[in-house]
Amino acid sequence: MAVFERLAHLCSATESSLSSNLFLSPPFHSFTIFLLELSSSPIPPLLSPSPSFTPIEKTFNFDIPLNDPEKDAFSIYYGDQQVIIGGFVLFFPNYSTFLGKPGFYVEDLFVRECYRRKGFGKMLLSAVAKQAVKMGYGRVEWVVLDWNVNAITFYEQMGAKVLPEWRICRLTGDALQAYQNANV
Amino acid sequence: MAVFERLAHLCSATESSLSSNLFLSPPFHSFTIFLLELSSSPIPPLLSPSPSFTPIEKTFNFDIPLNDPEKDAFSIYYGDQQVIIGGFVLFFPNYSTFLGKPGFYVEDLFVRECYRRKGFGKMLLSAVAKQAVKMGYGRVEWVVLDWNVNAITFYEQMGAKVLPEWRICRLTGDALQAYQNANV
Repeated sequence: MAVFERLAHLCSATESSLSSNLFLSPPFHSFTIFLLELSSSPIPPLLSPSPSFTPIEKTFNFDIPLNDPEKDAFSIYYGDQQVIIGGFVLFFPNYSTFLGKPGFYVEDLFVRECYRRKGFGKMLLSAVAKQAVKMGYGRVEWVVLDWNVNAITFYEQMGAKVLPEWRICRLTGDALQAYQNANV
Repeated sequence: MAVFERLAHLCSATESSLSSNLFLSPPFHSFTIFLLELSSSPIPPLLSPSPSFTPIEKTFNFDIPLNDPEKDAFSIYYGDQQVIIGGFVLFFPNYSTFLGKPGFYVEDLFVRECYRRKGFGKMLLSAVAKQAVKMGYGRVEWVVLDWNVNAITFYEQMGAKVLPEWRICRLTGDALQAYQNANV
């Protein structure tokens, strides 16, 4: 994703930085991930299902087999069954004082290249929207680069509005560290 | 704030919608508020202080007394001592997959009109930045309207960068509700 967004120079995540902050709390109350798991045969039910979320299952029929050159690197096994990770969406609660309600902020929506244009991205984002409605939340929000016309068209087709006037402010790096000993 | 941003028509929060979603969890792990409490004499220590945060105290000297026409509506009492609420900052954790780290997102920074231009806004935002550094977080982010030149100048002086290319996408109202029964 960082490469696609021409921002790879800003990407410093490591396996340990990810694992130390994710998968620590029950779904939806903090950072939450829906994984896109793909298999040519039905995926067996989870041994310890979450009480707060039932996995969404969907069958797709493709005319030709999908060629995934990195299939093994992105596989997990449920017993003997190989399941390929095709993408993910990472989101977490946000809060609007205007609505007086929480919502969800979608930080990342990613589908691996060989699985794009099949409806998986729509499936992942729709699952977040459906969960927001279920919880009585008021909004789902995310950001897009203004030159990413394909993404903007896709998001608008999903019912989102792109807000023209708002800009993100970011305090990071040395400018943030300067507050360590700030006499607030 | 909604009036100032010319967005009062979008403000539907009520006392009960606010109280049902805020003040429910320990600070910093979910929606968190720093309140600006003002008093002409030192504010007594909290009876049950939070183990995760020590209130920041600061003394200001003004040449002329501040006139607060809504003083009583915005007062609370610590025993006999009247303390005026002058503003607040509401923030919550966000997450960057690029950094592999959490950060804070500042939803609202508000100082009541009669207390503006005294450094209180800077104090509130600095307190969030300092807390982010303390927790090892990588960013503090918020949004600003592109026509709000005074705010942009203030944020840049605090060390923030305004990102020119990103736009917010928002799925809300009927467009969001449409996902209630979506065949995801």
